[in-house]
Amino acid sequence: MRLFLAVLLAGFATPAPASGLIDNVNGLTVDATGDLVHFTGLLIDKDGRIEKRLKEGEKRPTLLDYRYDGKGRTLIPGLIDAHGHVMELGFSRLNLDLSDTKSLDEAKAKIAAYAAANPGRPWILGFGWNQEVWGLGRFPTAADLAGLAGGRPIWLERVDGHAGWANDAALAAAKINATTRAPAGGRILMTAGKPSGVLVDEAMGLMSKLVPPPQPKDYDAALQKAQEALLARGVTAIGDMGTDLNGWQAYRRAGDRGALRVRIMSYARGMEQAQIIAGPGPTPWLYDDRLRMGGVKLYMDGALGSRGAWLKAPYADAPTETGLPRMTSASLRNQMSRAAMDGFQIAVHAIGDKANAEVLDAIDELSATYQGDRRWRIEHAQIVDPLDLPRFALHGTIASMQPQHESSDWQMAIARLGPTRLGGAYAWKAMLANKVPLAFGSDVPVEPADPFIGLKSAITRTDAKDQPPGGWLPEQRISLAEALRAYTWGAAYAGFAEQRFGNLAPGQRADFLILDREIELARPADLPATQIVEVWIGGQRVLSK
Amino acid sequence: MRLFLAVLLAGFATPAPASGLIDNVNGLTVDATGDLVHFTGLLIDKDGRIEKRLKEGEKRPTLLDYRYDGKGRTLIPGLIDAHGHVMELGFSRLNLDLSDTKSLDEAKAKIAAYAAANPGRPWILGFGWNQEVWGLGRFPTAADLAGLAGGRPIWLERVDGHAGWANDAALAAAKINATTRAPAGGRILMTAGKPSGVLVDEAMGLMSKLVPPPQPKDYDAALQKAQEALLARGVTAIGDMGTDLNGWQAYRRAGDRGALRVRIMSYARGMEQAQIIAGPGPTPWLYDDRLRMGGVKLYMDGALGSRGAWLKAPYADAPTETGLPRMTSASLRNQMSRAAMDGFQIAVHAIGDKANAEVLDAIDELSATYQGDRRWRIEHAQIVDPLDLPRFALHGTIASMQPQHESSDWQMAIARLGPTRLGGAYAWKAMLANKVPLAFGSDVPVEPADPFIGLKSAITRTDAKDQPPGGWLPEQRISLAEALRAYTWGAAYAGFAEQRFGNLAPGQRADFLILDREIELARPADLPATQIVEVWIGGQRVLSK
Repeated sequence: MRLFLAVLLAGFATPAPASGLIDNVNGLTVDATGDLVHFTGLLIDKDGRIEKRLKEGEKRPTLLDYRYDGKGRTLIPGLIDAHGHVMELGFSRLNLDLSDTKSLDEAKAKIAAYAAANPGRPWILGFGWNQEVWGLGRFPTAADLAGLAGGRPIWLERVDGHAGWANDAALAAAKINATTRAPAGGRILMTAGKPSGVLVDEAMGLMSKLVPPPQPKDYDAALQKAQEALLARGVTAIGDMGTDLNGWQAYRRAGDRGALRVRIMSYARGMEQAQIIAGPGPTPWLYDDRLRMGGVKLYMDGALGSRGAWLKAPYADAPTETGLPRMTSASLRNQMSRAAMDGFQIAVHAIGDKANAEVLDAIDELSATYQGDRRWRIEHAQIVDPLDLPRFALHGTIASMQPQHESSDWQMAIARLGPTRLGGAYAWKAMLANKVPLAFGSDVPVEPADPFIGLKSAITRTDAKDQPPGGWLPEQRISLAEALRAYTWGAAYAGFAEQRFGNLAPGQRADFLILDREIELARPADLPATQIVEVWIGGQRVLSK
Repeated sequence: MRLFLAVLLAGFATPAPASGLIDNVNGLTVDATGDLVHFTGLLIDKDGRIEKRLKEGEKRPTLLDYRYDGKGRTLIPGLIDAHGHVMELGFSRLNLDLSDTKSLDEAKAKIAAYAAANPGRPWILGFGWNQEVWGLGRFPTAADLAGLAGGRPIWLERVDGHAGWANDAALAAAKINATTRAPAGGRILMTAGKPSGVLVDEAMGLMSKLVPPPQPKDYDAALQKAQEALLARGVTAIGDMGTDLNGWQAYRRAGDRGALRVRIMSYARGMEQAQIIAGPGPTPWLYDDRLRMGGVKLYMDGALGSRGAWLKAPYADAPTETGLPRMTSASLRNQMSRAAMDGFQIAVHAIGDKANAEVLDAIDELSATYQGDRRWRIEHAQIVDPLDLPRFALHGTIASMQPQHESSDWQMAIARLGPTRLGGAYAWKAMLANKVPLAFGSDVPVEPADPFIGLKSAITRTDAKDQPPGGWLPEQRISLAEALRAYTWGAAYAGFAEQRFGNLAPGQRADFLILDREIELARPADLPATQIVEVWIGGQRVLSK
């Protein structure tokens, strides 16, 4: 009996024969050492993993379950966004986006159409309006929204997030009237002695606290939208920087019903969420390597634009300010220590040079206690004192950076820092020179989850208008291979996933893109125009145009 | 290309050859119609499902991966506890159990040993002491606990849950001193003008609110203990009546790492937990039919012992009391409606005859709106007005009952109700006569999760001391086949699981027990002595003695 059972438990694993061939492609990947590897075929096994990369002329097997003819098109690994916000992306797609409207009338039409198309939504929520673009010469008003949503409250955030536009139903729900006083730091705009409908800054809280929290089905719908948005731009895996329980449950529901396509490397929104979600330590990889909570996201400081980034010396354009830490040194160390003790990876948001130095200090200290393969991550690492650059490599700290931020921020960064403190600004080339593991992401929805825009930024250091000529701080430009590596192997490594996906090596999940152009030959400025023809994840085609 | 892919997606399902044979057993199961079925062999396929039941003399296949010789022993389906509390069972096993101590000295020795064996536990928590059993002639005191736990606080609940015994460290932690006033409904026992260490009823809250909440690793350990306790008595599946998020996460962690053995049919602790855990509707069956949240548990009333059960007429032993509903009629209907709208099954605790009638009324009303296969459940259904008995069958309402409660409660029930209102008391035979689907459980940890005790109760209506002779209300006795059906097919049906496990029919998961005796021939009074020799779940042996 025992013998028989032992045989049973040993299983009946027979070598799975290769079941599919992706052939006749201009294949391109970046291996773990950073070398560009070319190939013309991929053999995929029945589990959706790469069995073998095939070069031109190399013999193809004939016993196949399927064969895909790439017709010479370019194939690259699925791109990995090391730092994004999946549910926020999804909700931004679920709500009404007015950012493309060119006039108030166009916006009104779009609001009415959205309200009609979403009869079950108790509130009409949106964002992205800009009265400057509309040439309106004034802020919009509640009266402009009259009759658009059948009496339901409407609440629309301005493009910059610093103002919101409400209709009468929303104002009534929030009990905002002529006598309502705005909270400190906020304003209630008035027209003829009555609230006009626009609330500014802190006054927005009067409304946002009323907006009904999304329900589980809204999370499910948002996740679906997020996956669509990511796949549309070739993102097959993402580091989710700040997962909360509601988001996690949506990921699991999708996984449980086989609807999780994009791979999510989840970092909990602080240790409390990590404990609720993952428990005593990281989860296993779930759903065929599509989901894992492996780490915790912490915040050391704020952002550069709002002068929340914590600097060593005052802001050039605000000589009395240096930004602020969002936690004390002791609290940073306590939280990192709690997370590390439970085996969670630690990813700390640090934008200013002081914040980066502070986190590097903490890593120096904790590394003595928490040894092994920790892969400490600093998120953004935007403004680093050049003296601190070599410190990243000391304990293998990963610089998780967003090339698109550089092209969006460069003029603002000059204003904030002046010309003499830019030696370690968005300094990806310097990171590589210092042998710092580099991972690229988008910070979506702050920037679009579009690695092709990021590749252009990384290679050219120019913005959407190709400015400045020759690139900003052009010594920090990197090659296509280096940038591609940070969006593939580097981003996988940053998520402890490099053995599972990211570089199309044998044994890895077959996640890849078919593109409409040869990206090696394309002008870098044209990379954002790249069309994704197909997306395959785990050997299954999930998108086809 | 499309053709090739279609072939791929169609899969390569070949008929899985039977891989194992359980042979030479005295096999016994109860089929969906209630018939006892005998067999001598089970063919089990590679997925751990029953391929075929084999009768004596029927040809056995020879091409097998394993063969198990039952040596003529009795094999029955894994038993299903339709109503228990998995995490509460686990925590009761994790904490110190003093219920078997015969003296204060024995208890002190056990406390000291437990404290020494659990150095990482910040509090020493336990239960089950009874100074009457010890013959102590007084309550124990804090002084009795001096030096037993190295300065750690100790907090031990009395066997009835109505008093707790603290040491000095615990009293100090709770800031309980000579001037502390007990809350209403509670007492702080005093000795020589100082708190003695014992807190009664509501005063227990002064301490219990301080006890550190269990951490995820504690939940994991408790779940492990719960599974051990269930398997030890042949329970292979359980209805978990009131799952909260922490418990659910422990179930998922166990499932994710392949450590979930017992099948858990989970009912959320109210709709809020259902939404957080399951989201917009029931989860799928997870982990090869080992976990599903399919329903919601609600409470209509309290318990009979504490006169919380809601009666149509006053208590016989408290003529001014009729018990209390725990929610209004409107709230019951609202909550049932919310749950039913989202497709959750509804299980309502109802003990008193008025509570049962109220829930039946609500089911009558809701059934018009929420049609289809709803399987409304009434949990306990202990005291039912005989006039209401036929109403269960009207909308297929399941009576989820606990035979062990009858044998524990019968004397108390007579006291509470008097002799004339017992026509529908623990009336499982009457339920069957009225064609009410019957499911049996234990309410563990209120009673031990031991279906063999329950089988005896169901068949004999006698208690552990075989009292009263001939059984209490003997007309409610049922046959072994009927009782076994309520612990197998009936309990599976109550959890929408009867197509998956419960009666060893072809296609079902191979969950079964090997017993030390022929239960059909055993004296019913001897059934609790049945030894579980082996437990198999999904065709894998998970326990062997």
